[in-house]
Amino acid sequence: VLRDVLGSNDLIARENRQAFDAHGCFVVNLMSAPGSGKTTILERTLEALDGRIRSGVIEGDVLGTLDADRLAPLGAPVVQIDTDPHFGGECHLDARMIRNALAALPLDGLEIVFIENVGNLVCPAEFKVGEDRKVMVLSVAEGDDKPLKYPLMFRVSHLLLLNKIDLADHVDFEPARFRANVARVNPGLPVIELSAKTGQGLEAWIDWLTTSMAESRRSSHVG
Amino acid sequence: VLRDVLGSNDLIARENRQAFDAHGCFVVNLMSAPGSGKTTILERTLEALDGRIRSGVIEGDVLGTLDADRLAPLGAPVVQIDTDPHFGGECHLDARMIRNALAALPLDGLEIVFIENVGNLVCPAEFKVGEDRKVMVLSVAEGDDKPLKYPLMFRVSHLLLLNKIDLADHVDFEPARFRANVARVNPGLPVIELSAKTGQGLEAWIDWLTTSMAESRRSSHVG
Repeated sequence: VLRDVLGSNDLIARENRQAFDAHGCFVVNLMSAPGSGKTTILERTLEALDGRIRSGVIEGDVLGTLDADRLAPLGAPVVQIDTDPHFGGECHLDARMIRNALAALPLDGLEIVFIENVGNLVCPAEFKVGEDRKVMVLSVAEGDDKPLKYPLMFRVSHLLLLNKIDLADHVDFEPARFRANVARVNPGLPVIELSAKTGQGLEAWIDWLTTSMAESRRSSHVG
Repeated sequence: VLRDVLGSNDLIARENRQAFDAHGCFVVNLMSAPGSGKTTILERTLEALDGRIRSGVIEGDVLGTLDADRLAPLGAPVVQIDTDPHFGGECHLDARMIRNALAALPLDGLEIVFIENVGNLVCPAEFKVGEDRKVMVLSVAEGDDKPLKYPLMFRVSHLLLLNKIDLADHVDFEPARFRANVARVNPGLPVIELSAKTGQGLEAWIDWLTTSMAESRRSSHVG
C-alpha cells in the first residue's frame, strides 16, 4: 500500500515539477523538526533576496496561518496549506497538496518558490513534491545524534542548515561528533552553520541558493 | 481508511492495557518532537526512582539503539522498538508494536513502564498504545507558538514537561505567551518547568508520577 501511495505521489510530483519548469521556477523543499527555525530562516532569506530574486512561499502546517502571517509583510506571495482535514492532521506535505496550492500561487514572474514543510523529521523525507532541492534544517538544540536516529532525512537532503549555532555553547552539541554522524549516513552532505538570529552563515546560504539556481537552469537547458 | 486503522489500533491498545493492569503496571507514553530531551528526562527519572519504584522502558526509534544504550546502565529493563521495516520508518508507535515488545519485557514486578515514542509532534498523538497517561515534552528552544501549530498533541496530553528551561534566556520564548497559547487549546493542561540538565522541576515531576500512580490504582480498585 505504502509503495502505491508513494508511486502515485511521484507521478503528481513530476507534473508539479513540469509546471515549475515551464515558468522557470527553482523550488526548494525546506524540511525540519518542529521549532528548528524554518520560518525565521525564510524571513531572513526573503529580506536578503528582496529586489534581487522574485520569491514565493508555500507554507505547510497542520493548522493555522501563524507562519504565513509572519511572512506576509515581506511582500512575497504566500499560500497556506493546512493538513488538518484528517483527524490530527497529516504530518507531511505531499505532491497533491502542492498541486492544489499552485492554483493560488502566481508562478509567472517567480524565480524561486520555497515550500516550508510540516515540522517532522520522518515522513516529509519520503514524499517528493516536485522540488529541485531538498534542504533540511537542524537546530543545535536538537542534539548531535539526530543523523543516526532519522537517517532518511539526512540522506535525501542536498544541504543541511545547522541553525541556532549561537546556542552551541549552551547545549550539549559536539560539532566533531555531529560531523562524524552526518558522514555515517550521507558523507557528501554540505553543512552550513547558521544563526537566523545573528545572521551568521546567511551569506553562505544565499550563495548556495543562487549557485544551485544557476546549476539547475544550466541542466534544464542541456536536457 | 484512517478511521479503520485507528479503530483496530484502539482494540489492541485495550488488550495492552489489560495486560499492564493484570500486572499492576502504571504506563506513561512520553511524546515530543525530536531532540526535546525525552531520553535525558528518562535518565534522570530512572535515577530518581531507583530503589523506590521498579521501572521498565520501551524505547521507540525509527532506527538504532542509541537511546536504549544510554538507559541500559541504569539497571531498568529496556526493550527497543525500531519502526524502520517500512521505507523511511514509521513516524510513531502503535499498539501492535507495543504488543510485540511486551514479549521481551518482564512485566512481573514492574510498577511503572515508560514508553518513549518516536520524536514527532503529530502522529503519536493519534495512536493509543495502552497507556495510563500521555505526557508530552516541549523544549523551550522549539518556541512558544507550538500549541497553536500542533494542537492535538497538547489536547490529548495529561501533563506537559516544559524542558530545557535553563535555555529560556537564550531563546525567543515568552512564558506568558506560551501559557496563553496552551490555554487556547487545552486550558486544564498542567505544565511543569523542567531542566533535565540542572535538575530544576525534577521533584515536581516525580511527585506528579507517584500521585498519578496512586490515583490510577484507586480508580482500578473502584472499577
